[in-house]
Parts: sequence; C-alpha cells; structure tokens
Amino acid sequence: KKKKKTRLSTLKSPQCGLPLQHSGKHCSTEPGETPDPVRTLVRLCVDRHYISVGEGNAELFRRGVSCSYGPLGLELRRNLLEQWWHSVTRSSAHVFGINTVNISGDTAAGGPEQLRIVESESFQRIFEKQKVSKEQLVQMLQELLLRSPPVRKNLFKGALEQFVPSLELVNGKLPFGLAETGLCFQPSGGSGCSANEVMQTSLVWFCSPRTSSQWLDHWSRQRLKWWRKFALSPSDFSSGDVPEEELEEVVSRGVRIMYNFPWGQEPLETLWIRGDTELLQKSHAVLTVLQCREDRKSVPHVVSVTGNLDRGMMAFLSNSLQQLKKVNGRQRLQQRNVLKLHPTLAPVKVALDISRGATVELRQVCEGLQQELMEAEVSVWPGYLKTLPTSVEHLNAKYDEMGVLFTMMISENTLESGLLKVRSRDTTIKETMHISEIKNFLCRYISAADNI
Amino acid sequence: KKKKKTRLSTLKSPQCGLPLQHSGKHCSTEPGETPDPVRTLVRLCVDRHYISVGEGNAELFRRGVSCSYGPLGLELRRNLLEQWWHSVTRSSAHVFGINTVNISGDTAAGGPEQLRIVESESFQRIFEKQKVSKEQLVQMLQELLLRSPPVRKNLFKGALEQFVPSLELVNGKLPFGLAETGLCFQPSGGSGCSANEVMQTSLVWFCSPRTSSQWLDHWSRQRLKWWRKFALSPSDFSSGDVPEEELEEVVSRGVRIMYNFPWGQEPLETLWIRGDTELLQKSHAVLTVLQCREDRKSVPHVVSVTGNLDRGMMAFLSNSLQQLKKVNGRQRLQQRNVLKLHPTLAPVKVALDISRGATVELRQVCEGLQQELMEAEVSVWPGYLKTLPTSVEHLNAKYDEMGVLFTMMISENTLESGLLKVRSRDTTIKETMHISEIKNFLCRYISAADNI
Repeated sequence: KKKKKTRLSTLKSPQCGLPLQHSGKHCSTEPGETPDPVRTLVRLCVDRHYISVGEGNAELFRRGVSCSYGPLGLELRRNLLEQWWHSVTRSSAHVFGINTVNISGDTAAGGPEQLRIVESESFQRIFEKQKVSKEQLVQMLQELLLRSPPVRKNLFKGALEQFVPSLELVNGKLPFGLAETGLCFQPSGGSGCSANEVMQTSLVWFCSPRTSSQWLDHWSRQRLKWWRKFALSPSDFSSGDVPEEELEEVVSRGVRIMYNFPWGQEPLETLWIRGDTELLQKSHAVLTVLQCREDRKSVPHVVSVTGNLDRGMMAFLSNSLQQLKKVNGRQRLQQRNVLKLHPTLAPVKVALDISRGATVELRQVCEGLQQELMEAEVSVWPGYLKTLPTSVEHLNAKYDEMGVLFTMMISENTLESGLLKVRSRDTTIKETMHISEIKNFLCRYISAADNI
Repeated sequence: KKKKKTRLSTLKSPQCGLPLQHSGKHCSTEPGETPDPVRTLVRLCVDRHYISVGEGNAELFRRGVSCSYGPLGLELRRNLLEQWWHSVTRSSAHVFGINTVNISGDTAAGGPEQLRIVESESFQRIFEKQKVSKEQLVQMLQELLLRSPPVRKNLFKGALEQFVPSLELVNGKLPFGLAETGLCFQPSGGSGCSANEVMQTSLVWFCSPRTSSQWLDHWSRQRLKWWRKFALSPSDFSSGDVPEEELEEVVSRGVRIMYNFPWGQEPLETLWIRGDTELLQKSHAVLTVLQCREDRKSVPHVVSVTGNLDRGMMAFLSNSLQQLKKVNGRQRLQQRNVLKLHPTLAPVKVALDISRGATVELRQVCEGLQQELMEAEVSVWPGYLKTLPTSVEHLNAKYDEMGVLFTMMISENTLESGLLKVRSRDTTIKETMHISEIKNFLCRYISAADNI
C-alpha cells in the first residue's frame, strides 16, 4: 500500500506534469541542464508513434495501463505478447492456451465492488417512471444493476472454470497449465466512476500440493529470466518474495517480478501459491474428478502467474532508452536518444531510405527490397516515401529514437553495382553490403539475437 | 432487419436447442437418419476443444459473438487474426496498425443507447442516501451514469481520432489506412440488460473523394479473395451491394461479404463509403490539416472495412466440416467427420503418437521431434502422452475431427531404422518417411498451401 502512494504522488509532482506538445526532432539542451528521464521517454514515445498524442493518453501510459498506441507501440506490444506466449506455451508440452470471455454470464459473481456493463437506456427508462415511490425506484434500479453483467478484473477465474474440461487433454495427469492473454478492467481509483483496461497475461498452473512451492520457484526463475533476456540493463529487473502481511488469505506464498522505474519499483508480474480453496469453490460439484492421478488423496493446488503487459512494455521502453551527450559543431551540448530495444522486440527492423538521385528507379529498388523483406517477416519502415529531403544526421537521429535496428541507404551507386550502405543502430558503424545479401543478413541477425 | 429476425427464430427452433453433453468419440446413427449439420458442428467443436463446454457458451458461438474457446479454438482464432493482419497490413506500404482503448474518456460521446462501465458500489452509495427526495436521487444517479465511461461498439471512432497524428507517417499523402483488431461490446438484445463481446477487425481507409468508389471495389475484391483463399468450398462465401434503403445517412455505398450458414446467410465483413462527415466532426479544429496534398480542395473520404472474426471463425469451421458416411463391419452406417481446415488455419499441424512397445525410448523420440517442430513453429499435439491404448481407427477419427493435418506414428521400427508412418488427413494415405525429413516436409507443405 505504501508503494502505491509513493508512485501516485511522484506522478503528480511538477516534473511529470509535462506539456505534451510535439517536440522538435531531437532536443538540444543547454550545457549543465539535466533532462528528466520520464519526460524524455514520454516525449520520445509520442514523437515516434509509440503512443498517441494527448495528455490523458500519456498519463495512462505512465500509470502502466492500456493507452492508445501508435503503429510502433502496437508492433512492440504484438512482439511482446508473442514472446510471452511462446515462452509459456512452448516451455513444456503441458501448457494449453485458452480464451475466456470478458463478460461473465454469472451476474451474482463479484460482489459490490465489481465493475459492470450497463445499458444507459434501461436506467433512463426507470428514471422516467412517474408513478413509483422512491423505495420502489431504488429497488428496480438495484435489481437492474444486479442483472447487469460484471466485467473481469483478471483472467484467473476463467482459467479455474476451464480446469475440469482441460483434464481430458492431459489424461488426468498433473502438473499442467492454462495460459491466456486478454484485456481486463480495473477501477481507476481517481474520480470514483472511471475504469482502466490492462492487457494481462496469465498462466494458471495446477500441481500436486507437495510440489507447489517448487513450482513457484521454477516459474519465478523462468519469468525473471524471460524479462532479463530482452533487457539492455538486466539488473533493473528483479524478483523478491512478497512479505507475509501483504498476502491474501488464500495465498500461502508470493513472488513479485519488479522493474526499477525512474520513479521507483513497480511490479510487472506476480506469482502466488493459491492452494485449493478457489478451485474447490469453482468446481464443488465435481470434487471427485479433481482428485487427479498423481496424488489421489488431494485436490490440486494452484500457482498463478499474472502479468501486466502494458507496464511491461513501458519497462522495456524505459530500460532501452540510452541518452548520449555530445557537443556539436556550435559548441552546444546535444543529446542523442537511442532506443536500444532488443532485436526481437524492436517494432521496425530496418528503414529503407534513398539519397538524392533518380528517385523513380531508386524507389523501385526500395519497393522490391521491401517486398522481399516483408515476405521474410522482417518489418520495414518505408523512409523512401518521404518526399522532402532530410539530412543524414537528422535521419539517423530519428531512426535511433524509433529503435530501428538498421538503416539502409539506396543510392545511384546501388543501381550500378548493387551495393548499399547499412548503418547499425547499436554500433553506428556503416558497412557496404550487396543487395542480394540483405535478407539473409537480417534474418540471421534477428534469429541470433533471439537465441542468446 | 428482416434477415436478423430470420436468424434469431432459426436459432430458437427445436433443432438447434440441442443438449450439450459430451458425446461419444464418434457418433454412429441409424441408416436413413440425417444428422443436423449445426448440431454436429457444435458437438464436434465442444468435444474437440474448439469451444468450451456449456449450453450458454455454445449459444454465444452460434450467434457469432465471442465465447469461451478451448486450446484448439484459441489457436484457430490466433491463426485467423494473424492472417487477417498480414493480408491487410502487408498488402501495401500504406497501412499502419494502431491500438486504441476500449474505454473512452469522452463520457459525453455515444448517446443514451451506449453501454457504459459502472462501479456498482458508487450506485449503492447513492441508493442508501436517506435524506434526499426521489427527484434528487434520480438526478444524482443520472449524473453518475453520464460520468461513467462508455465502452466501444466498434473500432471506427478510434481510427478517426488517429487520422491527424498519422498524416505525418505518410508525409500528408493519400491514400492510406489504419488497421486494428480488438474486442468491442454490443447489447445482446435479449433480456435487455446483457451485453456480448465481439473480436472485430477494422481497416479505415482514407482516400480522395473521387477515388472512394474504386477503393471500395478494390477492398471488396481483396476481402472476398481472402475469405475464399482459406475455404474448402469457396462458393459459400459471396459479396453483394447493400440495398440503398439499408444504408445509414452518412453512407453512400456499401458491400457485404456473406457466408451461407446452414441456417441462412450472415455478414462476415462490411464495407462502407462513409464520406467526410464523421472525419470532419472528429477533427473540426484541424480542418486545414485535413486538406491533403493529393487533392487540396477537399477533405479525404473514408472507406471502412469492418469484420466479425468470431463469426468468421464459425464460418470456416462450418465450411470445412466434411461429413462422410460409410457402412462399418456390423452393417451400421457410420459417420466420419473430417474438419478440413486450411493448412494455414489448422490449429494442430501434426499429432505424434506411439504404437505399443518400449514406451520410454519411444517417448524420448517423440519429445525430440516435438521440440524440433515447435522450434520451426509447427504446432504439435502430444498424443504420445496418453497412457491408455487407443485403436488406430479411433485415433484417426479423433484427429480428423480435430482437423489435424498429419498423424505420425512412432514405433519400435523407428528406433531401428528412423522410419515412421505419416497419415494425411485429406488423403487418408499413409506414407513412410525418415524422421530427419519430417520437419522440412511439414514446413514445405504448410508454406506451399499458404502461397496458393
């Protein structure tokens, strides 16, 4: 609880209440001035189409809930979701993916603090009733509210409901898991009548009671390894046991994977040993079925692994932003921002640009190369479509902020010799390559980074 | 409107009100009895883990809205979403993906028929107020309702809001498009206070006014081609102009892609020319920005392409179910159901099974092969984990119902010679192959099917 307060107060402090205009293409600051890292990150994310413009939207982003994402943010989220999914479902043959519904038919579930979806019109019709007393009106409204379907806060309940039908898949044998990713809704806390959405990831693992603690350790290690795999600075990701006093009643042990944001630590993923209580509540009619083969005398225990992918995305963006300072020709301190996202996560792998020249022919070369790369599932930024000429430094600065792995410059020379210049984001070194080698070079580079 | 009525009445007719118990592994019917195709489809989808068990869930599935999907249904939906995404975003360099939020901060939007997310507790607190009159109570509730955030019915509005920020990406040049997939909510119509969710696909295309009709034709052709590409019987998918009397006020032309379900035609995807009215409403402050380069004197027109992927999934399941009859040894008519899903869409590409023998060693071979295939992104069904022996006919019948492309039988012989039997779902022919060829064979097969 204390942590939450710190975070909220930090977010409301003046340094974060930044005006969100489109900034210049790269900012230059006076020598000695230290740029605020949060401000720089948010501005870069807006300028480079990771998140959409708008103060409210940036606020959602910083709070670690879903916001409106631009093309680059969307691709980054797709890549992250894909990697999470692979890491969980391919780690063993015993994890199955499911997809449950957001709106529960079980209107009685959830209790009074539940968020529900209501049809405004049905309420209006009751409001307009003239001939009923205040008490009757309240009763009618209360009934309507209770008949309105609740929306889910997490994916846990849905997975419990799928436990019994999934037993057939594993021949009744433990352990096994059910994986799901999807939108969940949370009260936003602030003004009292708003809600936020979060892209959650969930693995619900069913195992014998005596192995649940080992499995918690196993999954904690696996998850931390996963987060660190894609980090530029892995030590910012950490894991730790949740203090006993913070545990819910049904939970016997918990571990949190944390990220060290500029404003403090926040949890990205949480693992709980939840015992068998909730599983028994959900499936009391089928108690006998629950007694699985491995351990006939007891009901399986549940280990839940729940993550917030929106906050995870912000963690990787924050982690990969490198701010380099250099003094430019006019003796001004210039800041270069490079978004060193992991090659697997980077939303754009390569930008294709043309230097001045016979643009029609050069564009055709670009289009051909783009087609070839897209077929190999390498995402391309069609910089060659830009009609206004830009200096090479501006272009490099822009692509570095976008996190583009390689910039390829097609020139007159390419038409004659097939050679083009390839600049790496991470080394800033320019190499000359033949156009026929490009596809293989990129595919090898990305898959090598993936297998480290 | 007439169409909708027909559909609903069909769904309530006795033939569809099927009891949804788990059926036997494959059903045998008396000679002369014609099995109801809808009933067979739903039962197969439940038995084979496409959709979760439960009468309410099957009803959602048949109505073409999101239901709870099992592991196979989830994979099918993932594959479909992936294919839709590729077909739209890779078809041209000018389509960008976006992701907008479900909950709009703009509480005034939407009007009275809007679905809203409310916090039950806030309502309860007002219900409990003693000292207010009926009129005051109604006013407080009305204000609370209007402050509660609406949830989206479609993705269209979100894309319009992203039009101006996206102009920079295309250097202000038309045409270009914004693509998005995501959950939307709809009133369920029935009891008056329920709602359904739908996985929608949306392409919003911005073009010059004089080209909008050509673009409608272009995208209609593209979309129909896409649906038919994955169909077993392409003629069940069709497209047609929407009659003028069914068009909304802002729409000047419309095309629907329809699927011919056993109970009648239903729309899968709808294309509208929506003119510039809504774009102007959304962005009136930036009218000058809207006047793009291609055609300086006018605001771009909008062509929207909106699909329902849940219904699309049911269309492909329905389309690919082949019911074959044969007389078995005991002179009973036996029905064989084969789910001939397109190789790209099939959720499981290969099942690995073992025939009787030294199971420990055979399982190790299976595990190695599974690992190899999963790394090549070929989805595997680990049939070898099943401990109870099943006859080969039962196994084939089961995998045919699951739509598994190939069944591989690892035997004692594999340990000695490396050879194994590969059975094809579509030809039912068994071939002998060397284990080292399997991966390449499958990858070639799938990519060949993808490129037809």
